[in-house]
Amino acid sequence: MDIIAPVITPFRNGKIDLDLYAEHIRNITAKGVDAVFVAGTTGLGPALSVEERKALLEAAASVARRVIFQIGSLVLDDAVALAKYAERFDAVEAVASVPPYYFPRLSERQIAKYFRDLCAATSRPVYLYNYPAAVGRDVDAKAAREIGCLKGVKDTNENIAHTLAYKRLMPHMKVYNGSDSLVLASFSVGLDGVVASSANYVPEALARLREAVARGDVERARSIQFAIDEILEAARPLGYSSAVYELVEIFQGYDAGEPRPPIYPLDPEEKAWLKAAVAQAKAKLAL
Amino acid sequence: MDIIAPVITPFRNGKIDLDLYAEHIRNITAKGVDAVFVAGTTGLGPALSVEERKALLEAAASVARRVIFQIGSLVLDDAVALAKYAERFDAVEAVASVPPYYFPRLSERQIAKYFRDLCAATSRPVYLYNYPAAVGRDVDAKAAREIGCLKGVKDTNENIAHTLAYKRLMPHMKVYNGSDSLVLASFSVGLDGVVASSANYVPEALARLREAVARGDVERARSIQFAIDEILEAARPLGYSSAVYELVEIFQGYDAGEPRPPIYPLDPEEKAWLKAAVAQAKAKLAL
Amino acid sequence: MDIIAPVITPFRNGKIDLDLYAEHIRNITAKGVDAVFVAGTTGLGPALSVEERKALLEAAASVARRVIFQIGSLVLDDAVALAKYAERFDAVEAVASVPPYYFPRLSERQIAKYFRDLCAATSRPVYLYNYPAAVGRDVDAKAAREIGCLKGVKDTNENIAHTLAYKRLMPHMKVYNGSDSLVLASFSVGLDGVVASSANYVPEALARLREAVARGDVERARSIQFAIDEILEAARPLGYSSAVYELVEIFQGYDAGEPRPPIYPLDPEEKAWLKAAVAQAKAKLAL
Amino acid sequence: MDIIAPVITPFRNGKIDLDLYAEHIRNITAKGVDAVFVAGTTGLGPALSVEERKALLEAAASVARRVIFQIGSLVLDDAVALAKYAERFDAVEAVASVPPYYFPRLSERQIAKYFRDLCAATSRPVYLYNYPAAVGRDVDAKAAREIGCLKGVKDTNENIAHTLAYKRLMPHMKVYNGSDSLVLASFSVGLDGVVASSANYVPEALARLREAVARGDVERARSIQFAIDEILEAARPLGYSSAVYELVEIFQGYDAGEPRPPIYPLDPEEKAWLKAAVAQAKAKLAL
Repeated sequence: MDIIAPVITPFRNGKIDLDLYAEHIRNITAKGVDAVFVAGTTGLGPALSVEERKALLEAAASVARRVIFQIGSLVLDDAVALAKYAERFDAVEAVASVPPYYFPRLSERQIAKYFRDLCAATSRPVYLYNYPAAVGRDVDAKAAREIGCLKGVKDTNENIAHTLAYKRLMPHMKVYNGSDSLVLASFSVGLDGVVASSANYVPEALARLREAVARGDVERARSIQFAIDEILEAARPLGYSSAVYELVEIFQGYDAGEPRPPIYPLDPEEKAWLKAAVAQAKAKLAL
Repeated sequence: MDIIAPVITPFRNGKIDLDLYAEHIRNITAKGVDAVFVAGTTGLGPALSVEERKALLEAAASVARRVIFQIGSLVLDDAVALAKYAERFDAVEAVASVPPYYFPRLSERQIAKYFRDLCAATSRPVYLYNYPAAVGRDVDAKAAREIGCLKGVKDTNENIAHTLAYKRLMPHMKVYNGSDSLVLASFSVGLDGVVASSANYVPEALARLREAVARGDVERARSIQFAIDEILEAARPLGYSSAVYELVEIFQGYDAGEPRPPIYPLDPEEKAWLKAAVAQAKAKLAL
Repeated sequence: MDIIAPVITPFRNGKIDLDLYAEHIRNITAKGVDAVFVAGTTGLGPALSVEERKALLEAAASVARRVIFQIGSLVLDDAVALAKYAERFDAVEAVASVPPYYFPRLSERQIAKYFRDLCAATSRPVYLYNYPAAVGRDVDAKAAREIGCLKGVKDTNENIAHTLAYKRLMPHMKVYNGSDSLVLASFSVGLDGVVASSANYVPEALARLREAVARGDVERARSIQFAIDEILEAARPLGYSSAVYELVEIFQGYDAGEPRPPIYPLDPEEKAWLKAAVAQAKAKLAL
Repeated sequence: MDIIAPVITPFRNGKIDLDLYAEHIRNITAKGVDAVFVAGTTGLGPALSVEERKALLEAAASVARRVIFQIGSLVLDDAVALAKYAERFDAVEAVASVPPYYFPRLSERQIAKYFRDLCAATSRPVYLYNYPAAVGRDVDAKAAREIGCLKGVKDTNENIAHTLAYKRLMPHMKVYNGSDSLVLASFSVGLDGVVASSANYVPEALARLREAVARGDVERARSIQFAIDEILEAARPLGYSSAVYELVEIFQGYDAGEPRPPIYPLDPEEKAWLKAAVAQAKAKLAL
């Protein structure tokens, strides 16, 4: 059961700090992260240029043994270019893509064709990154099976039965859940792992949670999940995509850069508030 | 971890067949059901009169050792009367209630007052029966904590983290999930149990699933859950509330009566189709 | 274009005050209401017994020339009995019914059968009362056409195009929208009228709004709609179903009784707050 | 009351055909379109590069007297650059922006800051382009008022009362609805106009609809709206964003280019099917 980190993309004055990016990956992989998910939602992928995403991949592949590269784009040619670029790196075990987002008026045929075009463009496994809350569209297990060429899925979904359905219909697929509040559930029901943004700030806790599940200590596993839930509850109203950067500093002790507007960084009051709000959870996790 | 059956209410020509009701409870409790949930959604509770609900309770209490009695009503006095009636029976370990349904324009204050009025009316523990898809309103863990007097919850919800949150905020509460597709997840994360309509037709399978989880055999537990999922997938498009009656006949081998219109029984073609559609799942479960 | 009032049901100590009910109908029909909708949502219909609904109908038919009687029930026999009872009264121009509510797991066949059974039970026209926010299910124009025997619809829906679609697909149907915030739109696009709870407290304003539309004075019509919108905005957070009683007192000057718990009456603070909150709208309407 | 066309962006082999774009604008403005909305959703704006959007604007400003330029972007600097570029063109009467899309975890503060940053960057009026179905977030009238600097809104929303609320709270704002199925309603309730994708293929019909409303001929106006509704009903299942191109050819008689994958063009069978499906509506409109 893998712990996969959808790595944050650290900006300084609107530019990506690639050294910090690599350093951050080094830190979290040393603390239990098995693989990194590059240019996902937490990594602000849909807000990055093709060149920026290539640079991230290069940096990630230089420090992580296992990389999943998120290539989703509203321009098919860009997604294809990213898929092809990924072939240069042995560390890339799969490319993943969100379905075309924003445009609510695409047909199922169009969605399926998009993924088939990606499959045709690369020799690497193509994973579905299903995230209805961001994309406005659910590509569920039946739809994914229909597409035919998908080898894995990151399902960011509050319904673990929805995630399990991919495994039920396609037992050979790699199946990950992407919700931080379902890490305990994901490990407990035997998914292939989780892609959890919390792996950016509490990778040790996720590792311990996994160990607790593995040895049947549900009580212990649950107490870790509950501490993570407390963090999420505090951070979400502030804008979770931005709060993650601050949580890295709070829990890991180093400056993790900033997001890029319009994903605005927390302001000083919000930062102070967040630090106080997660103090108890931090104590519980005793990192 | 309890297996609780929300027992179907068997009708014959518009009247409840109380003997069949008792017989059915006897059968499923013999096969692993720990407690029965009387006049819940599967039991068509909101479509029953006060007298019908009292009769059901009396019948259930005569054959089951543990009963939870669902008393939710759009008339407070009726709910209170049912709560008081329940005190006559030692087997009743709690009364449960859905929040006032149908009326989308009630305030939080009104919802809270309803539950407090129920708590004041009975010495028995009062459980929340949270079922947003039916009620049109979510009484989540925070709202439940605010109410103050609730001792348990049946959360019919696809998000297991939503269910776990009651436990997180109120560790002493009895917490059950009510979704048949989350039985594996519910047992795995250590809820107090499940209230699963499938306990009407495959109680043995639920018992085995629980055993498999208890001994750490996730693979086995998952294969049982998947078979149940296949049954649900077949039955839902026909009207699950009606299909349950037929599933009892298919899996348990006896006529389980009918629902009452407008919860119309399946027609003969639907029954035949359902039987064929679940044949494979039945073979997998090998009951 | 009709102004139809879904009349509130005034309770005193849990019993319906039928004299007050008749008096209220007399008042609002004198002020512009064309017909009354008995035992609808505003009338707390789904929370009333069969006997209570019969009594309401009798009272309404004694004072109103045009009555639509809402008979929806989770017991088909009760709905049928109400449909038959309605035949006694010449004033009843139609019976209306919500689809079976609460139970989220009924099939389309079951819903259609329910309405066909009602049509078969009465010689009066049967209207669909479509209210997805309360019922949890949308019976849209296509579904309604499929049912085949419906002669009218009250569509409580924020999307006026959804309401117009009934007219588009079934030009001979009587089509009403049931949202207080869409009175202007309903009149402007030429629906057959509105069923508006505000007809209980500002019937004169609705009549003026209709006149303004009829003479092409959109500006004036809009200013009335906006005043109603302000009232709705103030009243909704308090629980609109309860606030309506208070709004009758505020705008019409007489005690309109109370709802019945769990539709709890406003408490004194809420009443005072509401009165202050709608003062400006009241001045604008200058009733 | 304005008829504003969110102009399609015609591609040939992945490149924008700017001549065709200008020609298309010339045609529809000659037939009743008052202003063009450049790089909106119908124009595939979120799928275009900054350079492509600038080129579109330049082309539009050369042939249309009134232009609204949609600048929404997940990179603030790009949106600002587009806002500044727009100042070169007298025809640009406003810039509009969707709120940051895709990222579901931004706070209200972040959304407000985005719009304030746009307002600060340009001397042109800034309009909100509210489109919850695409963006996953509703910036309603209250939120818009809070932002403070917005001068107009395109509200793509099925609830006309939602659109009217901007006018109610901010009477000086320019308020447009963006739903093709609400053109009749929008004109009837006195909005400032519509931004309707159907202005690409039936601009004459929209002009006649407006005239009919202006002279109080609701019947006639409604028959035009219903014909448009039939077209929408036929086109939507095929992927409306793609079907629009084909509808231009069907109704206006010229090749309008193609969308760019992953907004795939209709395939030949779909094109043939669509043509047949809208034949009746075309006859009704008698363009």
